[in-house]
Amino acid sequence: MMSAYDELMAFQRETEALAQIAGRLGWDQETMMPRGAAEQRGEEMAAIEGVLHARRTDPRLADWLEEAEPEDDEAQAQLRLIRRSYDRATKIPAELAQALARVTSTAQGIWAEARAAENVADFLPTLAEVIDLKREEAAALAQGGDLYDALMDDYEPGATAEIAAAMFDRMRPRLVRLREAVLAAPAPAPLNHHFGENAQLRFARDLAARFGYDFTRGRLDLAVHPFSSGSANDVRITTRVVETDPFNCFYSTIHEVGHACYELGIDPDYLFTPLGAGVSMGVHESQSRIYENQLGRSPAFTGWMFRQMLDRFGDFGVTSPEDFARIVNRVQPGFIRTEADEVHYNLHVMMRFDLERALIRGDLQVGDLEAAWNDRFLADFGVAVDRPANGMLQDVHWSCGLFGYFPTYTMGNVYAGCLHQALRAAVPDLDAQLAQGELGAATGWLRENVQRHGGLYTPGAVIAKACGFEPTEAPLLDYLDAKFGALYGL
Amino acid sequence: MMSAYDELMAFQRETEALAQIAGRLGWDQETMMPRGAAEQRGEEMAAIEGVLHARRTDPRLADWLEEAEPEDDEAQAQLRLIRRSYDRATKIPAELAQALARVTSTAQGIWAEARAAENVADFLPTLAEVIDLKREEAAALAQGGDLYDALMDDYEPGATAEIAAAMFDRMRPRLVRLREAVLAAPAPAPLNHHFGENAQLRFARDLAARFGYDFTRGRLDLAVHPFSSGSANDVRITTRVVETDPFNCFYSTIHEVGHACYELGIDPDYLFTPLGAGVSMGVHESQSRIYENQLGRSPAFTGWMFRQMLDRFGDFGVTSPEDFARIVNRVQPGFIRTEADEVHYNLHVMMRFDLERALIRGDLQVGDLEAAWNDRFLADFGVAVDRPANGMLQDVHWSCGLFGYFPTYTMGNVYAGCLHQALRAAVPDLDAQLAQGELGAATGWLRENVQRHGGLYTPGAVIAKACGFEPTEAPLLDYLDAKFGALYGL
Repeated sequence: MMSAYDELMAFQRETEALAQIAGRLGWDQETMMPRGAAEQRGEEMAAIEGVLHARRTDPRLADWLEEAEPEDDEAQAQLRLIRRSYDRATKIPAELAQALARVTSTAQGIWAEARAAENVADFLPTLAEVIDLKREEAAALAQGGDLYDALMDDYEPGATAEIAAAMFDRMRPRLVRLREAVLAAPAPAPLNHHFGENAQLRFARDLAARFGYDFTRGRLDLAVHPFSSGSANDVRITTRVVETDPFNCFYSTIHEVGHACYELGIDPDYLFTPLGAGVSMGVHESQSRIYENQLGRSPAFTGWMFRQMLDRFGDFGVTSPEDFARIVNRVQPGFIRTEADEVHYNLHVMMRFDLERALIRGDLQVGDLEAAWNDRFLADFGVAVDRPANGMLQDVHWSCGLFGYFPTYTMGNVYAGCLHQALRAAVPDLDAQLAQGELGAATGWLRENVQRHGGLYTPGAVIAKACGFEPTEAPLLDYLDAKFGALYGL
Repeated sequence: MMSAYDELMAFQRETEALAQIAGRLGWDQETMMPRGAAEQRGEEMAAIEGVLHARRTDPRLADWLEEAEPEDDEAQAQLRLIRRSYDRATKIPAELAQALARVTSTAQGIWAEARAAENVADFLPTLAEVIDLKREEAAALAQGGDLYDALMDDYEPGATAEIAAAMFDRMRPRLVRLREAVLAAPAPAPLNHHFGENAQLRFARDLAARFGYDFTRGRLDLAVHPFSSGSANDVRITTRVVETDPFNCFYSTIHEVGHACYELGIDPDYLFTPLGAGVSMGVHESQSRIYENQLGRSPAFTGWMFRQMLDRFGDFGVTSPEDFARIVNRVQPGFIRTEADEVHYNLHVMMRFDLERALIRGDLQVGDLEAAWNDRFLADFGVAVDRPANGMLQDVHWSCGLFGYFPTYTMGNVYAGCLHQALRAAVPDLDAQLAQGELGAATGWLRENVQRHGGLYTPGAVIAKACGFEPTEAPLLDYLDAKFGALYGL
């Protein structure tokens, strides 16, 4: 006779295996699927999502959760995560979940067309519908609490908008000050060279392996938007190639390797359990960002990379490792968040956060969103938005209903700043290693202190445990000041 | 209020969508999956097969089938196929289904290792276990009837071993006579040239398109064993490349295009219904074989192909279209079924059929199988088997539990012979078209008369309807005598 806990975990294991399948279909859709299959795939995805929803709200879960007696901390953590998922899933009425799935699925197409046509008006009715449904969902989840917090909790368990807002308010003045100082300094000349696709992809593969990506448990393909997908022993990544800008490919790859190594690095005992996946979007982003920025864009590592690129691409018009480091770390006030440098990136996120929080709280109406976006962008970045694709139509998130997701990007950067400080203390000769293109000590430390735990600890706890101190924004800001101060001779 | 029929079809639609997902995972496993993911994938496949089994034996199906009132012939056919699937699924005890899934999954690995080691003894205990379980399954399905028929019915509904055996007995003497006559004639010199992988794949893609494969609803990748996978608007094929033997790649591709075009050609209204897939393995094979052989290996078409290959590969040592046709249609008594020419192919199948029928009936013990195989091979092919990988370890089928599948290969060839006769009558200038590399009239006729019907008619009925006569082996045998007689000047 199986215990309630064992029965629960056996059931959960199948659910997690089915969820992996759904993820694999998502990967296929972005990389391999023939375009004529799109409609059929929509129905296939709906079928498996229906199976998953039924399992996640299966009434037997309530009984098992009631009766299960955890024997250790891990079992306790498994139950906590299953209960959390069950509570969230059962609070949302089935009709609402279906309406959201339907609307967000068509909304993405409408958003893409509106963006291509630079036509905000075409997108607004759909966006209004998405927001109404998300508010309804938030109300069901919040049960009297803050609507935005209820949504944010899905991506960053335990986080609240109030705490995030306070932190962002402390960060903004220092970021603005740094931005102004850097922009006042002479800018490096941009690259002016053609970097062949195959050579870029070869180097991207080598970089991925060097950062610890295990190609026997993953693969690298091309996709329009880089992403990482899957857990445990099948974690696939994608990248893209712009022949005039090789850093797009290289740093997208390293970023996704960070995400992938988190999943690949989780304790194998957690396979197909709630502990067997990254604990939150913020912690996930901390891994992708520390791989990409604190490690990959460090002047020590770019020195190695400069020599590699000379070997692989010949003379490409950059003559010193110092100039190369400045080009890799170019600071400029662009419109697009995903292309932003380390100094500007979090300013983009903070703006999204304030706008979407106001939308969900009902303080901002969808018809006023474009003006609010453009006013705020001018104030924060000193540049007027020239067209909607560079403004409020640039991100897919809202069309997918991803309200509450944006702040986790900056929380991830803050976590990365903390981990970087602790890593430097743990690996005193890190720069000497990076200068040789050696990442093993750094990625090993991250695997041991963050990645292997999967969902065992809460997001804040896993970072605090790894660092030996409670996470704050100070290490990130200190790091940015020091790095860009040195690069730009401030 | 939905009718019972509509409820049933809505339920079935989701089941079919989930089955497509399982098929897509199978494709991924053979083409894209990183090797480290194999174990995890096994568990994912088990999870989705569990979901499918639960749906296929869902007790509500019995109620809906009882109450549903079909309004037309199509609805009638849908109900017939759902009832058939439900009856089969519910007759097999869940423990037996699980035992079979478990044993056949490990048996494939054991078979592959035994084949690599040329060690029959290592495979026999597992094979015995598979046969015991298949006999148990057959008994559950047959309910007093013939065990082998019960298994065969899964692949070729309505077929019986007795009818197949009688037909094979009529075919054998003529095939043996033809074989002896051809082998007595001078054989063409084999190719002796190197054909680059990329150029082979480019031509394979062009051939696929020429035979009507729609790349917007499919894709062509490399795999160890060529296969076709999927239905409706996502039907993917694979091929392989041997640099000394380009016909391996080209004719594998055309063969799989035949399978794929069947699925792609089915009436789109049947999407995600039982009618939306090929009706049987035999009819499926009729499409792959007529594309590959009666069309692709016809001297008219190889004349076009010869010119193409000269353009693409330069001089490769063949000087006339007549020699080229003889090389494409080389007849030789090889050990391996999948590499056999049109004259020998069905002799391989007949041997497998007799052996596996005896195994399932209990007339042949697994310990005597190798001797029985080798004796029979010597008698039928005039050559002694030199090693197990060229003998009873060559095919994966038995390790997968695919007993009853082999005869459908020859039934498919027989159907292809009938369809070819009818096609020649319908398209009198077929050879003139083939000589120009034009396949549109031929593949259009097949789509219109066979492919679009999907599962609407029984296998025999769809062929009879297309041909205007009941299928028999005579057209195939006449075609082989005429074709090889002309090629070899008999």
